Amino acid sequence: MTQRYRLMIEYDGRPFCGWQRQLEDITVQGAIEAAFLKFSGERVVCQGAGRTDAGVHARGQVAHVDLEKSWSVDKVQGAVNQHLTPLPVSLLKVEKAGPEFHARFSAVARHYVYRIINRRAPLTIDNGFAWHIKRTISSRAMAEAAQCFVGEHDFSTFRDSECQAESPVRTIDRFDVIQTGETIECHVSAQSFLHRQVRSMVGSLENVGSGKWTVQDLKQVLDAKDRKACGPVAPPDGLCLVQVDYPGNDRLS
Amino acid sequence: MTQRYRLMIEYDGRPFCGWQRQLEDITVQGAIEAAFLKFSGERVVCQGAGRTDAGVHARGQVAHVDLEKSWSVDKVQGAVNQHLTPLPVSLLKVEKAGPEFHARFSAVARHYVYRIINRRAPLTIDNGFAWHIKRTISSRAMAEAAQCFVGEHDFSTFRDSECQAESPVRTIDRFDVIQTGETIECHVSAQSFLHRQVRSMVGSLENVGSGKWTVQDLKQVLDAKDRKACGPVAPPDGLCLVQVDYPGNDRLS
Repeated sequence: MTQRYRLMIEYDGRPFCGWQRQLEDITVQGAIEAAFLKFSGERVVCQGAGRTDAGVHARGQVAHVDLEKSWSVDKVQGAVNQHLTPLPVSLLKVEKAGPEFHARFSAVARHYVYRIINRRAPLTIDNGFAWHIKRTISSRAMAEAAQCFVGEHDFSTFRDSECQAESPVRTIDRFDVIQTGETIECHVSAQSFLHRQVRSMVGSLENVGSGKWTVQDLKQVLDAKDRKACGPVAPPDGLCLVQVDYPGNDRLS
Repeated sequence: MTQRYRLMIEYDGRPFCGWQRQLEDITVQGAIEAAFLKFSGERVVCQGAGRTDAGVHARGQVAHVDLEKSWSVDKVQGAVNQHLTPLPVSLLKVEKAGPEFHARFSAVARHYVYRIINRRAPLTIDNGFAWHIKRTISSRAMAEAAQCFVGEHDFSTFRDSECQAESPVRTIDRFDVIQTGETIECHVSAQSFLHRQVRSMVGSLENVGSGKWTVQDLKQVLDAKDRKACGPVAPPDGLCLVQVDYPGNDRLS
């Protein structure tokens, strides 16, 4: 009888061509599916909650797989992690789940953090894990402008041209911009996002932080509902999928 | 006329054979001195506050150099950082200092953080920046035991056999062990440390955390004043020099 397993996954996105399986390139989904094949001999489909882009990181990606044999969760975690070595992707938790659980479609909230380091000096330890912005930007202006995004809007401006979602309407539940020293973190939550929506929003916010745009300009850019109005898309380095929520506070943590 | 410059330095210790200049290997001191030579044509000696080991990181190393020409601090920072590229070492700040300032001998406190990640799953994002301990350890027991180290003691047990300090006596001002989720941070401060003292102390504390030693055992190990009594030295990955203080709260921050 088929058993569904729910996985919490962490990865350093740098060496991967994103989450989604591809024929020729190394992806997170492809690596996990290959590790399951080596472990159990089964060709699984690993359904993820967030299809992160190349170079985007995760500390709390959630996915599920179905296996014919019923292994203990400890066995699954240990064996799959061993087969994933030395790739920087790791199963933090494995739990048995019912057939009604779907990592992508059951998710009620996805939480991302986008990290900026605002300083003149080159990055060292944080290289690959933050957007390095050299000229001084105002996180206060960004924090104010970010409130334009909160609530239900048509996000056509902030949607990649390759986005396949049927509707451009999404509801942003939280968009907080918090500065600590030279680090600026954007905490962004929604039930679901359009393709490249967080990076598109952060890139446009930077236009406000640098003084190129006013808050009013950002509102007009949102209202334009036109991809061409969007500012430069922020680099993947700073983005991390930190948590996915399921109904009834059913978090895997 | 000679001008002294005070530098605040950040580095990812992984690719370096430690701070101290060596004939054949790439070190942080050697890289900085080479960058100054390229910039100003002068052979400087870069005196650092902490001679970190291979693989140890810094977010707040302090050093000084003397130059014959008087450049603006912005020019020094920009040019030296450019010549350091692509090595992961960066001058965070450059300030002019008087001839009485000595990065090593004027320091009144050095602050290190040692980071442990206590979980079963392999590290990904934090690989190289934390000690990965798989079996569950008690940070409470470690926090209690760490208080044995606070105050003035003969640290012969916790001193590398190659340590060149005249006296094995040091005064630890702070040794806090703080757990947040799966991360355990040791915050350790003293005016100065013996060679490998922090990693030796943390390695022995882990013996307490894992239940191999009691707090009383650790006290005896300290009292033994014998290197052979020390537990395994903790790996360099988790260690970071975060701050150095100078008289009169004269921090470069």
